[in-house]
Amino acid sequence: MQKLKKTIEKIGTVDEKSMKEAKKRQDSLTKPLESLGVLEELSIMVAGITKNPMPEIKDKVIVTMAGDHGVVEEGVSAYPQEVTPQMVYNFVNGGAGINVLARHIGARVVVVDMGVAADIENPKVVNRKTGYGTRNMAKGPAMTREEAIKSIESGINVFENELRNGVDIVGVGDMGIGNTTPSSAITAVITGEPVERVTGRGTGVNARLFENKIKVIKKAIKLNKPDPKDPIDVLSKVGGFEIGGMTGIYLAGAANHIPIVIDGFISGAAALLAYQLEPKVKNYLIASHCSVEVGHKIILDYMGLRPLLNLNLRLGEGTGAALGINLVEAGCKILTEMATFASAGVSEKREE
Amino acid sequence: MQKLKKTIEKIGTVDEKSMKEAKKRQDSLTKPLESLGVLEELSIMVAGITKNPMPEIKDKVIVTMAGDHGVVEEGVSAYPQEVTPQMVYNFVNGGAGINVLARHIGARVVVVDMGVAADIENPKVVNRKTGYGTRNMAKGPAMTREEAIKSIESGINVFENELRNGVDIVGVGDMGIGNTTPSSAITAVITGEPVERVTGRGTGVNARLFENKIKVIKKAIKLNKPDPKDPIDVLSKVGGFEIGGMTGIYLAGAANHIPIVIDGFISGAAALLAYQLEPKVKNYLIASHCSVEVGHKIILDYMGLRPLLNLNLRLGEGTGAALGINLVEAGCKILTEMATFASAGVSEKREE
Repeated sequence: MQKLKKTIEKIGTVDEKSMKEAKKRQDSLTKPLESLGVLEELSIMVAGITKNPMPEIKDKVIVTMAGDHGVVEEGVSAYPQEVTPQMVYNFVNGGAGINVLARHIGARVVVVDMGVAADIENPKVVNRKTGYGTRNMAKGPAMTREEAIKSIESGINVFENELRNGVDIVGVGDMGIGNTTPSSAITAVITGEPVERVTGRGTGVNARLFENKIKVIKKAIKLNKPDPKDPIDVLSKVGGFEIGGMTGIYLAGAANHIPIVIDGFISGAAALLAYQLEPKVKNYLIASHCSVEVGHKIILDYMGLRPLLNLNLRLGEGTGAALGINLVEAGCKILTEMATFASAGVSEKREE
Repeated sequence: MQKLKKTIEKIGTVDEKSMKEAKKRQDSLTKPLESLGVLEELSIMVAGITKNPMPEIKDKVIVTMAGDHGVVEEGVSAYPQEVTPQMVYNFVNGGAGINVLARHIGARVVVVDMGVAADIENPKVVNRKTGYGTRNMAKGPAMTREEAIKSIESGINVFENELRNGVDIVGVGDMGIGNTTPSSAITAVITGEPVERVTGRGTGVNARLFENKIKVIKKAIKLNKPDPKDPIDVLSKVGGFEIGGMTGIYLAGAANHIPIVIDGFISGAAALLAYQLEPKVKNYLIASHCSVEVGHKIILDYMGLRPLLNLNLRLGEGTGAALGINLVEAGCKILTEMATFASAGVSEKREE
């Protein structure tokens, strides 16, 4: 708990002075004022986060966290649980969607076992197992309060270790069969929206399984009574180990003045927990895209974040975050690499 | 005229067989069905365009075409005309927005003088000058019919020359002080929308100049009576040399089975002319983004194209196209680089 507390206390404000300097430079570059829209805004935001008016995005990291969910025994997913470890091996072998997109943008992928229900035997996977899958939240709490704290602190540790290898920006992704179910539960509890409004078809369940999924989520909330004002209570009762780990990444990123890019619905639910623990986290968050999963938009609206992309993605793993990182990098390059009107000898706008 | 006619005749259909094969492969990759949304659609579209079920995007080209406009003497732009050649030099010196974003995505920039009102003395600029700026369309036709055809055929020639250096995808961008004015005129004439609905503030004119801009466009249309059914007539009466050049790029790209990425409003107006000349062009077009310039959305809706990005861009030069190309490349890499369920040993979805 000490680690979590200290990390939260370390989260401060962004640097207005660097933002002003970055804005001033953007306005001096050879383009009509603000004509690169969101790219310019991203560069100014990153200047504030990193306290650097000329930020460079070089070391790009995607942290993909895997965990299993006891609630799958209620039949909430179209895929069998064995897919979680199979996909973890796919990640380290470079064959998954996130590997392709991380290579595309020049990022490294850090794969973390936060609680897969099988032993992962591969040295490339960071072992931060809190347990072999959570317990079935439809029958009791998914984990203890101690496990919830441990999962968040494990995420903080993962981030701090990566920081030593260089991190200019971090994207947060997930893998875990059944994990849209706890994500919907977290979203419903924290935002106060009805379960139906925050629940989607995940990897693609049919209408009958979808009805069942909603029932299971309602049952878990009714049974466990998570306290919306206590994010750790919410995580322990209806969350997941990889969700807690991602929450830790957001908190540690913000505490260390590094921009953190949200992927889809599951990483969004983790961001929501981080935001409830410390609202200042929001200033360090970039929403890469809006997922097909309906709850994601509700999460982003709740935090007041606007997604960069709308590409009908719903894979997770950090795939949307990778595309978002690429845009943030583009914005920072505009800021640092473009010529100014003065340096290029281009005439400025006339007085009107 | 022979060149233009032959190019249009060469435009055929996309390859349904390659699209089916690409779709089948997408469905076999280690991700829930269609979970990478638009990225998957782009890869299938490119398979059809290139007649290759496993297309690779390696040689990326941005063609940025510059031209001047006699109509600037009516006071329709906030910048002086000298900015057009100044920006051309900025392009070849690598300091403009398009240079930064082209480097970011690994594309080469081909800068073409289609009709700048000054001599450009730099061997890196492709000289395809049809004239030293168009004539003032508020006082008569912007160019002759012969000049309009010449500008389109010059664009075709530029594309065919580049093809010898390798082109897997091409983005189309513009530079020309005052060129939102002819673009609005073209859009109004072809779509039948009122001038007010297709006219924006360009590089940022104030309210008084904006009112004047609308009046000038109305006057030019009333005076010249361009025939909406004859795109060459529209180009000659209210168009521009760089707009004609871009129209040529779209036609030549489609004729050669290369995907072509539209940038913003001006390159959109050029695409509209290409579409009116041969509606089959549409199947080869990818809309990278929706510009802040209001007419752009009307153009895209008219052609039934959905933009990939909404980032409040309005710079032109091919900047939005560069970001779009990056997404197309990402989609094709997903198709060609991801592991299949079989190759990665991942279990497939259960029967429900």
